[in-house]
Amino acid sequence: MGVVGMGTDGRAADLVIENVTALVHGGDGTIDFLPGARIVVRDGVIESVAAAGDSPVPEGVEVIDGRGQVAMPGLINCHTHAPMVMFRGAAEDVSTVDWFNKRIWPMEVNLTADDVELAARLACAEMIAGGVTTFADHYFMMDRVATAVDDTGLRANLGWTYFSSEGPAGFERGLEYALAYRGTAGGRITTSLAPHGVYTVDDADLERTAAAGIEHDLLVHIHAAEHREETRASRARRGLTPIGVLGKTGLLEGRTLIAHAKGTVPEDVPLLQAAQGRVGVGSAPKGYLKVGEDTTPIRLLLAAGVAVGLATDGAASNNTLDVWESMTMTALVQKFVERDELWMSAKQTLGLATLGSAAALGLAGQIGSLAPGHQADVILVDLTGPHTQPVHDLASTLVFSARSADISTTIVAGKVLMRDRKLLTVDVAELSTRLAPRLAALTDTAHGRTIQQYDAV
Amino acid sequence: MGVVGMGTDGRAADLVIENVTALVHGGDGTIDFLPGARIVVRDGVIESVAAAGDSPVPEGVEVIDGRGQVAMPGLINCHTHAPMVMFRGAAEDVSTVDWFNKRIWPMEVNLTADDVELAARLACAEMIAGGVTTFADHYFMMDRVATAVDDTGLRANLGWTYFSSEGPAGFERGLEYALAYRGTAGGRITTSLAPHGVYTVDDADLERTAAAGIEHDLLVHIHAAEHREETRASRARRGLTPIGVLGKTGLLEGRTLIAHAKGTVPEDVPLLQAAQGRVGVGSAPKGYLKVGEDTTPIRLLLAAGVAVGLATDGAASNNTLDVWESMTMTALVQKFVERDELWMSAKQTLGLATLGSAAALGLAGQIGSLAPGHQADVILVDLTGPHTQPVHDLASTLVFSARSADISTTIVAGKVLMRDRKLLTVDVAELSTRLAPRLAALTDTAHGRTIQQYDAV
Repeated sequence: MGVVGMGTDGRAADLVIENVTALVHGGDGTIDFLPGARIVVRDGVIESVAAAGDSPVPEGVEVIDGRGQVAMPGLINCHTHAPMVMFRGAAEDVSTVDWFNKRIWPMEVNLTADDVELAARLACAEMIAGGVTTFADHYFMMDRVATAVDDTGLRANLGWTYFSSEGPAGFERGLEYALAYRGTAGGRITTSLAPHGVYTVDDADLERTAAAGIEHDLLVHIHAAEHREETRASRARRGLTPIGVLGKTGLLEGRTLIAHAKGTVPEDVPLLQAAQGRVGVGSAPKGYLKVGEDTTPIRLLLAAGVAVGLATDGAASNNTLDVWESMTMTALVQKFVERDELWMSAKQTLGLATLGSAAALGLAGQIGSLAPGHQADVILVDLTGPHTQPVHDLASTLVFSARSADISTTIVAGKVLMRDRKLLTVDVAELSTRLAPRLAALTDTAHGRTIQQYDAV
Repeated sequence: MGVVGMGTDGRAADLVIENVTALVHGGDGTIDFLPGARIVVRDGVIESVAAAGDSPVPEGVEVIDGRGQVAMPGLINCHTHAPMVMFRGAAEDVSTVDWFNKRIWPMEVNLTADDVELAARLACAEMIAGGVTTFADHYFMMDRVATAVDDTGLRANLGWTYFSSEGPAGFERGLEYALAYRGTAGGRITTSLAPHGVYTVDDADLERTAAAGIEHDLLVHIHAAEHREETRASRARRGLTPIGVLGKTGLLEGRTLIAHAKGTVPEDVPLLQAAQGRVGVGSAPKGYLKVGEDTTPIRLLLAAGVAVGLATDGAASNNTLDVWESMTMTALVQKFVERDELWMSAKQTLGLATLGSAAALGLAGQIGSLAPGHQADVILVDLTGPHTQPVHDLASTLVFSARSADISTTIVAGKVLMRDRKLLTVDVAELSTRLAPRLAALTDTAHGRTIQQYDAV
């Protein structure tokens, strides 16, 4: 036993979390809790998670006291449109078709790059406050989202959305962006190709995307099988389900992240099974309830070997970017739709929030676990509040009683971004003040234009 | 225009909330928001809610600055078992039958009166922190719950649960309690008769209860039509739905609060319509999802003229006593089960949380509205957090983006029970410390005894 935090090179650790109950994974991915743990972080990476000995921490190392708290891998938002926080609550009480055609796509005509960056910063603030340490984003003017990610300290996978209605320029800009920005922000930014969806991007562009994804080892992040109605319409129009379209255009040969996948049907299973290890799904259950639609058939997807992760979608439909809320909702809604109170237990749900979400983004082994060698993306959850006492079953306390506001501390790559609920890299009041005078112009639809027509059903 | 806060008797107001956006009700119960409002409280009652003039507030009056916050009527929990927070997370991943017969009812053999009081205090802390100002409780040793209510400053309707398996003593103790405790805690405690359910209390006891309720003008608070399976079983056994049993035994002639009512069916509608103005339902949607059961058919109940309010049930099934969470879940789940994204709008949901819940408890005109003459039960909701910015639609922000942790201030009868999220009448750390050594004994089921057998399906 040497001095804790002195690595073999004699250099001190960057950060030590003491006296914490650590959520750890067994070899088979099961969830366990290690009380009285010490987590040592060096160079932004987790060096060790172990029962604390008596060895002292050398001076000068930042120490966080984790007493009364649980350390978890930072949450992963597997599908969002971060800048859409600017439209939070601006498209309520409408059908899905009207949400796109009367509200969102006409409002998006109004966007400036400055709006996107400002809103992305606000979204980053919300995610840091909610314990999200990585998010997969799918939007426009993504160079400005990258700036927000770089400045606020988050980790992200970023893809610049394109439609075939833009002509070849859309795909080309997306590819150029993905290649230029991968590995930026000190390696915290990974990138993807982001064709909007199987109903807004034609087969030729999807094939081009699939080939480029494989050639450049890029994730493809796409909306597909968003609901059963899309699946029905796709079958009627072209005799293929949306998942079938992904297969036909080569997108199941590379690494693909599918947003929603609520319209996945049993006939899709063989295709998905063949793509095992390459394909993930991001599920955002709150927004699905809100529009009265089916939820993601997680049992079917897991049985087909698909990695399933948690997501929030954009705040214009989900109203928050709260992945903790998605976690609680996933457990509740899955039990409800399967009519099975034993399915999607608290530990299974924590599995989706950690290893499942990391795998869905193709980042298994890098994030999603408090294990040596993983990125030091850690959150501390304070369980001393009245709503989380007493604790009979820690997994249940986390999934069914705790909420994102109980997260006291958010750490990404070993850097503390929120301490005792105080955000350290972003000023929310300043952002709100700057965004307020833009709201009227952003939500104006009197111009009669739109960025795209929704026609998936 | 005189000096604000000086009533006609020349006595100063007790409390003034300044610069707040107040949730107010139109004459037809619609929800509206009054920005820049001043709320004046005198003798625990709301004296006025109006756009602030320039008149000064006299010295010595407590003033709360509501800038950046929304003032709402305090939340009302229409059905809970507060002391069951001691079993939070102690009965997970079990069927409803096993939840009762293998976990809860055997564990309740272990209860002491001190446990009940201690747990009730913790529950009160959770509810104050979550903006609940009134709760309807249905449990045992309710004299000790009354002590917790009195000490912590909450408002409650309390009923001592009884089963027919106890013989006549159960009903008699319940009636004696209801008569002895009504109007205590400075009038903050009202009481009810609390027969457990239509499947655990026989018709003779239900008839006795109905008669006593009418004779003494007491609310009857009862579990009925808890799920469709109960309705099916009741029909098969005796040719009556559970609502039919309430009708047959006279319980729809007096004031009755029905917990859950998920098994209400269209044939119950005429009976419920005839009881309009007397019958309310408390709905706790989170726990229903968790056990994979149907939810309360709110559309059917509202159409039948039944007052519907929000509830949490006990924390052994719901894992929190968070009525704000019930509010958000109600909107989402109702949209989902009705497959109608336009149903249960944010404003409709706020209506259930305020006037609906007050009416369900038979307290319309006394609580549930920031209107002159109503009890000064007020909460302030801080909307400056990143997850509630920007605000395009305040009702949606409240229902779909805000959460109970955004409540900064909880006021009951004009007394501040939580200020800036600090609880002023209860010490959570002390309660947790005292409860911890009791947990093993409380959850022990090795004795093989039970307080009652569950046999509703």
